[in-house]
Amino acid sequence: MSRVTARRPVTRLGGATPLQRPDTLVVEEPLELRVGGRALAVTMRTPGDDMDLAGGFLVSEGVVSAPEQLRAMRYCAGVDDDGQNNYNVLDLDLAPGVAPPDPSVERNFYTTSSCGVCGKASLDAVRTSSAFSVAEDPLRVAASLLGTLPDRLREAQKVFDRTGGLHAAGLFSADGTLHCVREDVGRHNAVDKVVGWALREGLLPLRETVLVVSGRASFELAQKALMAGIPMLAAVSAPSSLAVDLAVESGMTLAGFVRGATMNVYAGAERVTT
Amino acid sequence: MSRVTARRPVTRLGGATPLQRPDTLVVEEPLELRVGGRALAVTMRTPGDDMDLAGGFLVSEGVVSAPEQLRAMRYCAGVDDDGQNNYNVLDLDLAPGVAPPDPSVERNFYTTSSCGVCGKASLDAVRTSSAFSVAEDPLRVAASLLGTLPDRLREAQKVFDRTGGLHAAGLFSADGTLHCVREDVGRHNAVDKVVGWALREGLLPLRETVLVVSGRASFELAQKALMAGIPMLAAVSAPSSLAVDLAVESGMTLAGFVRGATMNVYAGAERVTT
Repeated sequence: MSRVTARRPVTRLGGATPLQRPDTLVVEEPLELRVGGRALAVTMRTPGDDMDLAGGFLVSEGVVSAPEQLRAMRYCAGVDDDGQNNYNVLDLDLAPGVAPPDPSVERNFYTTSSCGVCGKASLDAVRTSSAFSVAEDPLRVAASLLGTLPDRLREAQKVFDRTGGLHAAGLFSADGTLHCVREDVGRHNAVDKVVGWALREGLLPLRETVLVVSGRASFELAQKALMAGIPMLAAVSAPSSLAVDLAVESGMTLAGFVRGATMNVYAGAERVTT
Repeated sequence: MSRVTARRPVTRLGGATPLQRPDTLVVEEPLELRVGGRALAVTMRTPGDDMDLAGGFLVSEGVVSAPEQLRAMRYCAGVDDDGQNNYNVLDLDLAPGVAPPDPSVERNFYTTSSCGVCGKASLDAVRTSSAFSVAEDPLRVAASLLGTLPDRLREAQKVFDRTGGLHAAGLFSADGTLHCVREDVGRHNAVDKVVGWALREGLLPLRETVLVVSGRASFELAQKALMAGIPMLAAVSAPSSLAVDLAVESGMTLAGFVRGATMNVYAGAERVTT
């Protein structure tokens, strides 16, 4: 059985009579991340590319920024009722000298990029914790090309058509080459999987690239792009106020409602050429 | 200035020339929840109905299930650069005898409803921690009525039309009466705000009600519905495998792709009459 999709019986209403048939759903399962055996975080994700998800998560959290900082990852522990490994627990081994993250709420709240008491504090935290700067990135993308990327992302999604339940994130270069596409039930996970792929490939910071996401642009997604050194984030739907504020303050380009010929550019418009 | 929307300058591309104008965005800001002064959780949310968000969160986490268990809530601490309270920190005061949640990752992971090493463990945790059961709920809703609820939810959204950036959750009774609608940049927050409203009004468990959500049905949303005693969850888009599994095991009705005359019922189809 695929671990990305699952079949479940469904009653389809709307025709002459109710129709019983199997339906294909996107799989959602928890993944526990541990560092040196200690629980760090749990995310509900679609199985697949778990190690990239873990690597990208560590980049987003400011723990690692180069592949040699993450020495090993292995599935461990958790077994199902039949004693089989369920591949839902990953133990991460950091290189000597790499400080493991402190999972406490208080510390996360005040010192990492995830949060902040006010928007200003959040922005400060992200700005100071990112290993990379995007402000001087020379990327330029033609608006006519940028407008086509969401459709190309959509075409590259393998699972969406079967389930309708997956977010996607894709990494493009300025000439429109698609380097990596990842899908997940959680949009933040799709981005982490892309960033983790780049970490593994030794490509960080991701200079002169565009990250395209299938939905909205939240603060969290803009933050993940920034932590990976990506200078442009393009979303099919609306951005939030804090995502725009972060883009403005960090010198990132943020485009929303990117739909063919039309789009809104909320920050860094000089990188989108017309 | 409204705290729900914010204006930001935008460059609109797609016409003859780029157009500079202000755009209305949905506000996203962090909210820190504290219990007795101790940081419990932070969520990125759209300001407004914060106390309902906090109350609903506590219900979802299995901390409270009746209004008298939550004695007081007050904004505290956090001030912005001008020394003004930014209303982004809420301190919650539980009644004597109500155990505060343990915010550690380990404990949350193994014992609360948020997560689990495998799907099975998650489902077990939710089943055992919910104060209410929905399996015997006598709710019946006509499919013809159910199919109209997403449009009615959409019409009741106040902010979406201006920003395109908000999820919504609405609570309906079997005759189609809309009792509560809440919007938020995070869909889980929208549901928490509805549940918190019900807690405050003394309406838990929410027997014979339908929770309608504007997007997809994740495990987390199904779990929140279950913790509030809501017997039917209807989503405009796709459910995940784990959301369906939870619905089946708990006796909840779960409908997805609810769009006018057509819908898929993944669990508890006997409550949808044709």
